[in-house]
Amino acid sequence: MRMYDVIKKKRDGGELTHDEIAFAVKGFTDGSVPEKQMSALCMAVFLQGMSDRECACLTGEMAASGDMLDLSEFGELTADKHSTGGVGDKTTLVLAPMCAALGMKVAKMSGRGLGHTGGTVDKLESIPGFSTDLSATRFTEQVRNVGIAVAGQSADLAPADKKLYRLRDECAEVESIPLIASSIMSKKLAAGSKNIVLDVKCGDGAFMKTPEDARALAEAMVKIGTAHGRRMAAVITDMDSPLGEGIGNSIEVNEAVELLRGGGPDDLRELCVTVCALLCWMCFGKTEDEGRRMAEDVLDSGRAYESFLEWIKAQGGDTGVFANDGLLPVAETVIPVKAESDGYVSITGCERIGIAALYLGAGRKNPGDEIDRTAGIILRRKHGDRVSKGDVVLEMYASEVSDVEAAKAELGECIRVTDHAPESFPVVKDIIVY
Amino acid sequence: MRMYDVIKKKRDGGELTHDEIAFAVKGFTDGSVPEKQMSALCMAVFLQGMSDRECACLTGEMAASGDMLDLSEFGELTADKHSTGGVGDKTTLVLAPMCAALGMKVAKMSGRGLGHTGGTVDKLESIPGFSTDLSATRFTEQVRNVGIAVAGQSADLAPADKKLYRLRDECAEVESIPLIASSIMSKKLAAGSKNIVLDVKCGDGAFMKTPEDARALAEAMVKIGTAHGRRMAAVITDMDSPLGEGIGNSIEVNEAVELLRGGGPDDLRELCVTVCALLCWMCFGKTEDEGRRMAEDVLDSGRAYESFLEWIKAQGGDTGVFANDGLLPVAETVIPVKAESDGYVSITGCERIGIAALYLGAGRKNPGDEIDRTAGIILRRKHGDRVSKGDVVLEMYASEVSDVEAAKAELGECIRVTDHAPESFPVVKDIIVY
Repeated sequence: MRMYDVIKKKRDGGELTHDEIAFAVKGFTDGSVPEKQMSALCMAVFLQGMSDRECACLTGEMAASGDMLDLSEFGELTADKHSTGGVGDKTTLVLAPMCAALGMKVAKMSGRGLGHTGGTVDKLESIPGFSTDLSATRFTEQVRNVGIAVAGQSADLAPADKKLYRLRDECAEVESIPLIASSIMSKKLAAGSKNIVLDVKCGDGAFMKTPEDARALAEAMVKIGTAHGRRMAAVITDMDSPLGEGIGNSIEVNEAVELLRGGGPDDLRELCVTVCALLCWMCFGKTEDEGRRMAEDVLDSGRAYESFLEWIKAQGGDTGVFANDGLLPVAETVIPVKAESDGYVSITGCERIGIAALYLGAGRKNPGDEIDRTAGIILRRKHGDRVSKGDVVLEMYASEVSDVEAAKAELGECIRVTDHAPESFPVVKDIIVY
Repeated sequence: MRMYDVIKKKRDGGELTHDEIAFAVKGFTDGSVPEKQMSALCMAVFLQGMSDRECACLTGEMAASGDMLDLSEFGELTADKHSTGGVGDKTTLVLAPMCAALGMKVAKMSGRGLGHTGGTVDKLESIPGFSTDLSATRFTEQVRNVGIAVAGQSADLAPADKKLYRLRDECAEVESIPLIASSIMSKKLAAGSKNIVLDVKCGDGAFMKTPEDARALAEAMVKIGTAHGRRMAAVITDMDSPLGEGIGNSIEVNEAVELLRGGGPDDLRELCVTVCALLCWMCFGKTEDEGRRMAEDVLDSGRAYESFLEWIKAQGGDTGVFANDGLLPVAETVIPVKAESDGYVSITGCERIGIAALYLGAGRKNPGDEIDRTAGIILRRKHGDRVSKGDVVLEMYASEVSDVEAAKAELGECIRVTDHAPESFPVVKDIIVY
């Protein structure tokens, strides 16, 4: 087989066979297929697309390029959730203990933040002592005993995907639904869970800007997972506004804790309940109504919060900070932004809020940058809320590394007070099951 | 400027600016743009196309990447012809002396054969002593004094094109009309002639298989040349059958000589007269009828043949072999192929005839291979000719390196005797001027 012929076939709109895809992925991983050829193939895929069968093959080959976690001892109870990323997304911090308290097994590989705000690992590491550096043995043991383990993504999880993503990133070949879907799902397949819910964010603050694109990506991923024997569901959720009220690492942990204690913002609660209910259907065969009741009950009874504390402790975190309704410390310099007139809060650029949080120190400009886990933003009023002149719309939490002026300028561009109530959307826009 | 953005723009169907194209070509040539990125751009161009303006920019940048011949001392009289390549194409050997005898200046850079048969340089080197290794000074002097010089293509003629072609060849990015047109025309622009006729071969034995593709390529090249201030014309010519009767290096030189002496096959003569007439129009402002009369007269009067001998002598060739109606020696082993029934000769696979000549030793399997300049094929009957059982249809000229059986098998697949006269086409299918 020659890579030349594989490229030519895709270039001319053909459907690649499993052998052709395996040849390309293996050759690219071991270096026998040069980057220039793989780049040509990716551009051809970008412009000619891939069938569902091709996507499933590509994903399987990339997953098999490294370690595949074996969670078979947990039977049908393993649950994973993946978010395509957005501003203020702390869902995992709430959802994982909800699921564990219901008897599911949550074995999660999470990444650090690459974009404007921290990833789940960054958020968890705001808790003193918390470590995501778990050996394989300890990881599985913790899943067995506690029901949750969250580890930083190992170097050998889908290495073909890692190499391919770097190439695509250099060669303008990222924004292709078959390639994005295969990339995400290769890591999910390798991570081993039987039941997977995808949270595809949609809107200004997300990678997918339109509902059509979000839906196409969600469907592509659901099909790939199903082809590989996983039970799959996806939710399309709003990212025209940040999720919840807080953006920033410690700030988001605190918001998750408040939700687990029975408070917290409605939109975050709604999303966690929806996804948890889907997983109750997938893992236990419950109806939607039963699932929602189970999810609400596990939150309201405090059982999810207990599970959270147990999990944090198991990974070395100091749960003492949460004693007596305590929370993680946040930056002491708080700069309020107030409404300059009466009206309604209107958020028109969610991504800019993420960038503002980055200017305050909550995210990384470059991989490897240090982040300030105490910095961030709390929205005291959300999109569509009525405000009077002088009301605090949001607070910036700043430290000595913050560029407050830059953050303020970004926020001024995207959060305004308008005369008329702006259009609002529910957090969960759509649910896709196979 | 970032190459990433240039790729992305083309990927999304945008039109690149001159600066963007120059950035990509210069960066690729000096190595600052890696092959993986250039490969992505070429695949994007392959699938999204390029506008006439983009093609002209790309061609100009590739031409300017190396030496540009200065033929300005010859004013409006410089004439060049380029063939996209076919089986039995010895046009340059006849046309160049026709043009020189009419007062044009033919300064030609020619390649060696890459495909099944030799290139013009290979054919000329069949003449004992003939050298295509001319210094720049000697080249220009010969154009001035003799009116023709044919040199092997210098390493520094459009080096960007050379590097890009290699990349495209590895990455399945060759068969794109904008890229083919830019590649050919970059060398033509660098070679410096004011008047250029393109001979775009069309049919089974050519790179362009259909008249539509041939016409599209011809139009693209004519537009590029015109945009760079050259006078351009193109002919679309038949390559469903070989041009003339002989295929092979010495065999083709001999056929050219016979035509220059007033004999030779009709189709070759027709093509040479047509192209020469076009150049008379371009260089001297003659009408088509006047041009054809000048072309026929320069052949029939023997002036073109005199010019041929002067040219060969100027480049060190031994013209003694042509004295007393002499010709170059050809292989002594002649294997005739005879008609097995009465009927009409039907040629259905011109490329296979070229491959048969290669098996006999006339072409290169790999660049750098030695070729046997005495080997080849002479078609004693052409497509559509009436034959009786036992008539010699063709002769194979073989030496000890020939694989006669393989050649015979190829020929058997593509030259047949049929009951009914097959459809025939004129050699010149179309003429395109700007």
